[in-house]
Amino acid sequence: MSPLVKCVPNFSEGRRQKVLAALAEALSSVPQALLTNFSADADHNRSVFTLMGTPLAVKEAVLQGARCAVALIDLNVHRGAHPRIGAVDVVPFVPLAETTLEQCRALAHEFAEQLVAEFNVPVYFYEESAQRPERRDLAYFRQVGFEFLREHSGEELYRPDLGPTQLHPTAGATAVGARKPLVAFNVNLDTTDITIAQRIARALRERDGGLRGVKAMGVNLATRGMVQVSFNIVEPDVTPLYRVLENVRLEAARFGVAVVETEIIGTLSSQVLVDTFNYYMQLRTFETSQIDDVWIERLKTMTHDQ
Amino acid sequence: MSPLVKCVPNFSEGRRQKVLAALAEALSSVPQALLTNFSADADHNRSVFTLMGTPLAVKEAVLQGARCAVALIDLNVHRGAHPRIGAVDVVPFVPLAETTLEQCRALAHEFAEQLVAEFNVPVYFYEESAQRPERRDLAYFRQVGFEFLREHSGEELYRPDLGPTQLHPTAGATAVGARKPLVAFNVNLDTTDITIAQRIARALRERDGGLRGVKAMGVNLATRGMVQVSFNIVEPDVTPLYRVLENVRLEAARFGVAVVETEIIGTLSSQVLVDTFNYYMQLRTFETSQIDDVWIERLKTMTHDQ
Repeated sequence: MSPLVKCVPNFSEGRRQKVLAALAEALSSVPQALLTNFSADADHNRSVFTLMGTPLAVKEAVLQGARCAVALIDLNVHRGAHPRIGAVDVVPFVPLAETTLEQCRALAHEFAEQLVAEFNVPVYFYEESAQRPERRDLAYFRQVGFEFLREHSGEELYRPDLGPTQLHPTAGATAVGARKPLVAFNVNLDTTDITIAQRIARALRERDGGLRGVKAMGVNLATRGMVQVSFNIVEPDVTPLYRVLENVRLEAARFGVAVVETEIIGTLSSQVLVDTFNYYMQLRTFETSQIDDVWIERLKTMTHDQ
Repeated sequence: MSPLVKCVPNFSEGRRQKVLAALAEALSSVPQALLTNFSADADHNRSVFTLMGTPLAVKEAVLQGARCAVALIDLNVHRGAHPRIGAVDVVPFVPLAETTLEQCRALAHEFAEQLVAEFNVPVYFYEESAQRPERRDLAYFRQVGFEFLREHSGEELYRPDLGPTQLHPTAGATAVGARKPLVAFNVNLDTTDITIAQRIARALRERDGGLRGVKAMGVNLATRGMVQVSFNIVEPDVTPLYRVLENVRLEAARFGVAVVETEIIGTLSSQVLVDTFNYYMQLRTFETSQIDDVWIERLKTMTHDQ
């Protein structure tokens, strides 16, 4: 059996359906790399794709997606509520099954070299691939964004880790890295007051004294007349999903604000689902092995082999 | 690919570890029939095993289990809080993947014929296999139990559908049937008053005007100093798990009683899990396809084939 990886490329396009369809087609063009999930948000003006498969197939598929994004997305005219530095904004490689983080780090580096060689898009390495400690956190680039980096990428503090010092004129730069699985979780609130989303984000994120492994920011969902607290939960085994949601409800209540709906971007392991299921249902012993679906797939393989 | 089935045999033994180990060994003895879950309860004095695999393998494995149960379990000395009619008490066959209920019905009939031929244990057909409408519901036999049927199985109302008219002297009779997937869900309450569990069961079960597709009974958990409401949720897509639990909480509150813990016996489809996850998390769009684990199994097959 080959090792398996997940890659969750984020592109700076969430509105133009033709571009989204072209991206999906490009990302689906390599056998042994399955496009398992897709979401786009018009307010964020951003799309997130999940690919799973063998390392080389996934890397090749994301390069095809990058080719499409570099050709069709111009950061100079891109506006959206979510921070970004490039057309191919973030490319994280995540280990699956028996694959190691080290293997993903090597893969991320190979991907970055090809991105530079083929498209001349400079790369910042982040998370487990970071070459400078302060660059581990994506927020380092996100807080300044494309427009700032375009002017300052020549400076020591903002020089790319790989590729040209100048940002690509239309595609900007790309953050590439290996990382552990995380849960991307958004909570929409029934208010248009962005400061409420920001205060809740501050109360909950680890950086400001909140919950361990929780990153958060407030995002304005202008077309929907709501604001959003957008989370990355990077240690879902330590800070489970239900605790994040219940703490949002707790903090939102002080403003008389309610949660309207939530969303999970991308895919997650069944353990994350089961942890939350167990909490709300007061289950003591329910385990992931009690889910039929995985057994069914295994049995298909077993009986197929005969 | 062969069709796949699940079988969830219930045996009237939940205390003697050696017997439980022998049952597990017998049920695991056939390749292509995986023993995917097991639970035993001392108060119920009952164990539930989940097998999944190809129809013939699963049928053969359950017959091996029945051989073991007929040899080692004597209903005349069996005491437990859960109603029962035999050592091999209930044997439901459940379709998985593309298998039909009709295929399970044929399989249940074959199993019953072998059970009669090999062990001389009479069979009552229930659910989709029922030969008389009033016998669809297991409660029909359960309400009277082994001790009653032993005396009355010669009468028209209680005559077995297959095999000898007399119950097996130690192994009693067996209920065999095809059925759709159900969720076996138990809720333990912090009271020793069985009438409270019974009143909640009555309030919630469909038979008495409660929630659709919900069967329920009160069970005394003497060794734990609690009572239990034991549910079969036979239409979990219509009456989701969270609604059952929240209604237990609602009814229990009028007695000042709280839910201590819950349990799910056997396995369930990821859709049941996701429905509850979506409710409590206020998710609008989360789908079973966003669970990594099934994709991983599929990819293992894909890359294995190369």
